[in-house]
Amino acid sequence: MTNTAQQNDLANAIRSLSMDAVEKANSGHPGLPMGCADIATVLFTKVMKFDPANPHWPDRDRFILSAGHGSMLLYSSLYLLGYEDMTIDQVKNFRQIGSKTAGHPEFGHATGIETTTGPLGQGLGNSVGFAVAEAKLAAEFGADLVDHHTWVLAGDGCLMEGISQEAIALAGHLKLNKLTVIWDNNSITIDGKVSNADSTDQIARFKAVGWNTIEIDGHDQGEIEKALLASKSSDRPTLIAAKTTIGFGAPKKAGTEKVHGAPLGAEELAGAKQALGITYPAFEIPGEILESWRAAGKRSQNLRGEWEARLNASPNKDEFLRRTSGELPAEFAKAMADYKKKLAEDKPKVASRKASQMALEVINKALPETLAGSADLTHSNLTNTPETLPFQADNRLGRYMMYGIREHEMAAAMNGVALHGGLIPYGGTFMVFTDYARPSIRLSALMEQRVIYVMTHDSIGLGEDGPTHQPVEHLSALRAIPNLLVFRPADAMETAECWELALQSEKAPSILALSRQNLPALRTEYSSENKSAKGAYTLVGPADADAVIFATGSEVAIAVEAQKQLTEQGIKARVVSVPSMELFAKQSDDYRAQVLGSAKARVAVEAGIEMSWNKLLGDKGRFVGMHSFGASGPIDALYAHFGITAKAVVEAVTAQL
Amino acid sequence: MTNTAQQNDLANAIRSLSMDAVEKANSGHPGLPMGCADIATVLFTKVMKFDPANPHWPDRDRFILSAGHGSMLLYSSLYLLGYEDMTIDQVKNFRQIGSKTAGHPEFGHATGIETTTGPLGQGLGNSVGFAVAEAKLAAEFGADLVDHHTWVLAGDGCLMEGISQEAIALAGHLKLNKLTVIWDNNSITIDGKVSNADSTDQIARFKAVGWNTIEIDGHDQGEIEKALLASKSSDRPTLIAAKTTIGFGAPKKAGTEKVHGAPLGAEELAGAKQALGITYPAFEIPGEILESWRAAGKRSQNLRGEWEARLNASPNKDEFLRRTSGELPAEFAKAMADYKKKLAEDKPKVASRKASQMALEVINKALPETLAGSADLTHSNLTNTPETLPFQADNRLGRYMMYGIREHEMAAAMNGVALHGGLIPYGGTFMVFTDYARPSIRLSALMEQRVIYVMTHDSIGLGEDGPTHQPVEHLSALRAIPNLLVFRPADAMETAECWELALQSEKAPSILALSRQNLPALRTEYSSENKSAKGAYTLVGPADADAVIFATGSEVAIAVEAQKQLTEQGIKARVVSVPSMELFAKQSDDYRAQVLGSAKARVAVEAGIEMSWNKLLGDKGRFVGMHSFGASGPIDALYAHFGITAKAVVEAVTAQL
Repeated sequence: MTNTAQQNDLANAIRSLSMDAVEKANSGHPGLPMGCADIATVLFTKVMKFDPANPHWPDRDRFILSAGHGSMLLYSSLYLLGYEDMTIDQVKNFRQIGSKTAGHPEFGHATGIETTTGPLGQGLGNSVGFAVAEAKLAAEFGADLVDHHTWVLAGDGCLMEGISQEAIALAGHLKLNKLTVIWDNNSITIDGKVSNADSTDQIARFKAVGWNTIEIDGHDQGEIEKALLASKSSDRPTLIAAKTTIGFGAPKKAGTEKVHGAPLGAEELAGAKQALGITYPAFEIPGEILESWRAAGKRSQNLRGEWEARLNASPNKDEFLRRTSGELPAEFAKAMADYKKKLAEDKPKVASRKASQMALEVINKALPETLAGSADLTHSNLTNTPETLPFQADNRLGRYMMYGIREHEMAAAMNGVALHGGLIPYGGTFMVFTDYARPSIRLSALMEQRVIYVMTHDSIGLGEDGPTHQPVEHLSALRAIPNLLVFRPADAMETAECWELALQSEKAPSILALSRQNLPALRTEYSSENKSAKGAYTLVGPADADAVIFATGSEVAIAVEAQKQLTEQGIKARVVSVPSMELFAKQSDDYRAQVLGSAKARVAVEAGIEMSWNKLLGDKGRFVGMHSFGASGPIDALYAHFGITAKAVVEAVTAQL
Repeated sequence: MTNTAQQNDLANAIRSLSMDAVEKANSGHPGLPMGCADIATVLFTKVMKFDPANPHWPDRDRFILSAGHGSMLLYSSLYLLGYEDMTIDQVKNFRQIGSKTAGHPEFGHATGIETTTGPLGQGLGNSVGFAVAEAKLAAEFGADLVDHHTWVLAGDGCLMEGISQEAIALAGHLKLNKLTVIWDNNSITIDGKVSNADSTDQIARFKAVGWNTIEIDGHDQGEIEKALLASKSSDRPTLIAAKTTIGFGAPKKAGTEKVHGAPLGAEELAGAKQALGITYPAFEIPGEILESWRAAGKRSQNLRGEWEARLNASPNKDEFLRRTSGELPAEFAKAMADYKKKLAEDKPKVASRKASQMALEVINKALPETLAGSADLTHSNLTNTPETLPFQADNRLGRYMMYGIREHEMAAAMNGVALHGGLIPYGGTFMVFTDYARPSIRLSALMEQRVIYVMTHDSIGLGEDGPTHQPVEHLSALRAIPNLLVFRPADAMETAECWELALQSEKAPSILALSRQNLPALRTEYSSENKSAKGAYTLVGPADADAVIFATGSEVAIAVEAQKQLTEQGIKARVVSVPSMELFAKQSDDYRAQVLGSAKARVAVEAGIEMSWNKLLGDKGRFVGMHSFGASGPIDALYAHFGITAKAVVEAVTAQL
């Protein structure tokens, strides 16, 4: 190793703060910050472009700590670089409620945290979205305004997770040359040596998907700098395999799993500091070292100033600012209103997936910021419109992501796109495969990102493909995720409204659950109000009904048919369409009481399981829906077989009267 | 291509039946069966070892159609080979309710279907478990009784899914040489050319994880045979990259995505038959061709007879039969009873994850069939015991799977192990990462397999790791899956009982949700009855209580504390522990009514969301639990912060009285 004393001092500042914070919290992961301190030092003080005084600068480089358990590496660096919100007190409050320094980096807690990581592979998955967004916006607005790099630090855990393959294969295919992944190649996982569970030649693996690869000593700051800079001029994404020692400096535990996820303990900590030559007290970085870090933090201020000047001179300034702020254009509301008027006239009987495509034809015209896509089910999800030419290595202006059969990476990439800003990602697959993408969907919700999931084939209504493809538990399982809007529109009008709500939802992701089969038009009159915005509303029937029937999506038509039959029997019934339980739960008690009403009989019908309905149904209400997995057969036969029929709804009503 | 006329006739029989069945169903996927007919022909008529007359022969080779949409390839072959339950009428009833020929192969519908496939990558994931089970049982019982091969047919979809990387990396690491994956390399996916979304050099990728690779023309039966046989003598798993034409024979649609997932249509079908030289009517395979197939189906009868003789002569016969039947040994019940007595004496205050390990120390001694494992969290999940030495390439007798950081593959492999038979797989990760494994957990349930998921760190009780690691919605989301037993034991005694139930559950997988934190002993008296078997039972308090408090796992102690405080206030309260909602739902109305009681106040407390409780709580009941994502902090601070306390339970009770 050829590091200078000053280089070591800078890296040891990270090590020192990280060891101290973990020790004080009596919890955390010292191994990665100690092992990757040299990498972080070079990256943050010499290579990356950013400005702690303007942490949201749109043209900053992004750093993603995919190995999120090493959060103290990031917190230490942010403090040292002079990010104002990352005070030494925050570092001391590592892993305490209310601190900005959670166990794993949480997006929104502090500036400089570009994404929430911890679940392994997610940061790497996000990074592809960041790099796509950069490439697309650079093509749209020019390199004068958009020209930055995405840097990822990933561990063996990230690379073993399946999502890593989806991510690197997609990045390699798209030739995302402004993406560099540094692999913390420390040969250790929680259970011991990597070689216990893995024999992968990672260099060969990355080469196989079209990556540039570089191997270095991860403790040699000169080598690190050379590699990082070299990666910037590659025509492909770059893997830097950095050989490191986990817990570098710890006299007994370095190089072992013992230093991964537990405090060093007083003795080992003292020994590490001695070995590293750290003589200053806990949390007290000497002035000279801190000043060097802070000076490095200001390195890009000039670049930022020049960028600002270019932005001010740009004819695209207003649009660029609108796009990066995430605001929808003023004309959008009018375009949607016009479209709803047209729907009221046309009354189309279409599948809600088709209605979604019809809505998208309006949306994609009005909103240049949408980034469409599908996990290889374009003609099933109907996520494409005339505007959406493919985004490819040779077409950075493309608006359609051909994600391949990679649902998990699609979701993780969409998170990255949304976090980057300037684009609104939506992507499709079959509803049942939300299971494949669930870890990333959860993170969309946790990070409060506007990511829109177009999930078609949303019930047994998909027919012959059978139980493996038929969602049954998925509506309830998705409604279980906090801060996720689950929309299930009943017809083309509601589909338009739900799309509008999803696009307006700046702080929550949305699932659009859409049918394969055709649905009749039920909302046939224009209303300037977005009725779906309240989550549930009376579609048909008198306020003083004896029975209220709740339904969503494809089952609303069944409820309406049941209501008709009940009326013929002299029973007054009311149908409530529930496009979103989450939005309904947010309404006033008055509104909720009014919609629920005081009818004697209460029934819900949905081609999924009962669980998420019990709250609305209460003690006496009855549920018509699924109680098992589905089956393979034609749609009509399936609805009859599983008893999801107007007749069943009528019987469930009359049984209560 | 050098196929003989007879070779073509055999393959065309598959093509013909597949085209006809899809056409008749007016739904399905003709492209793969037509493209892979030559491969299937060689595999089934020349290479594989099996006996249609004894389809459950434990030493048969296994065939896994990972590209499950091509189900007609399998159904056609099973019919042609003479599997009795696969009649021509079943083939004609393709994709109809009640038929054995569902849209995707469903395990249990017909013999010869070794696993349920359709969700891409799952079959490949399963196959690693099949090969592990074979290797382990061969080491235990000898090659005389166990010596078979696992064959997989996978498409580009399977190889793009992330789980494929987890699977092949694990298989390569373990040198599972009796595993051959045939890649249907047709260059087409649903959205068009593979090259739209992927540029992977698959050969290089498989080599990077230690596989043997062979490239062939997938329509040359001679080449196919040579490759299949060569793979059998490899010391590593083998990828056979078979270049094929999707929809081979279809005059206009072959080689395009148009033939992937829709009937050919009358004209194209007629053209395909003409091009292929198929002159016989739909569903009517000429006698000579059928006889050739049937004769091939009988090829291994002698081998099976010899095997039977060896089994009959083996001293291990009884144990082998017990193991492959899945029956637990008679001594097991006694071992568990003794252990429960010991627990009643010791009253250990331990985390339920530790209690699980204590139970496993009994179980793994009594049951040689358990195959343990963890996704690199052994010392957190506590899934190991003294018996569980690692299963590795150089230790096939090992009983511990070091799955690596591959939760999804762990689950898929466990499905494969369970389906293979002879072993009972259990594996651990953090509860929150059930999300990563969810597609395979769903298949455990759909296939009714005894797979046991040891999911520790089951709530905010894990503390400082924060919201990314804290399950909140997961208990409800897992309870939503049909035929999945979700256990959340309250103390060491319940943990033992839940383990016993999970092991006895031959037709449903189990989730054991276990705490990181210590839990007091609440069941301190021995009972010969497994009280957890009823799913819910009164733990403490009078039958005529004014309030009933439901709780699970770590919150039962909170409920008991609340009950004590209520008693001090003169309020009679009863605590019901609910180790499994699913089992409780199966009890008689009488028992359920008795447990629910008629108390005025009803409260449930669980450190998760409310959704799955609403059914029990009804209109007036109150829930004490989580209403958002968690946070990073010490456990006591978190429980206080989120209001999951005895005080909150007491208030929820008194508010109702």
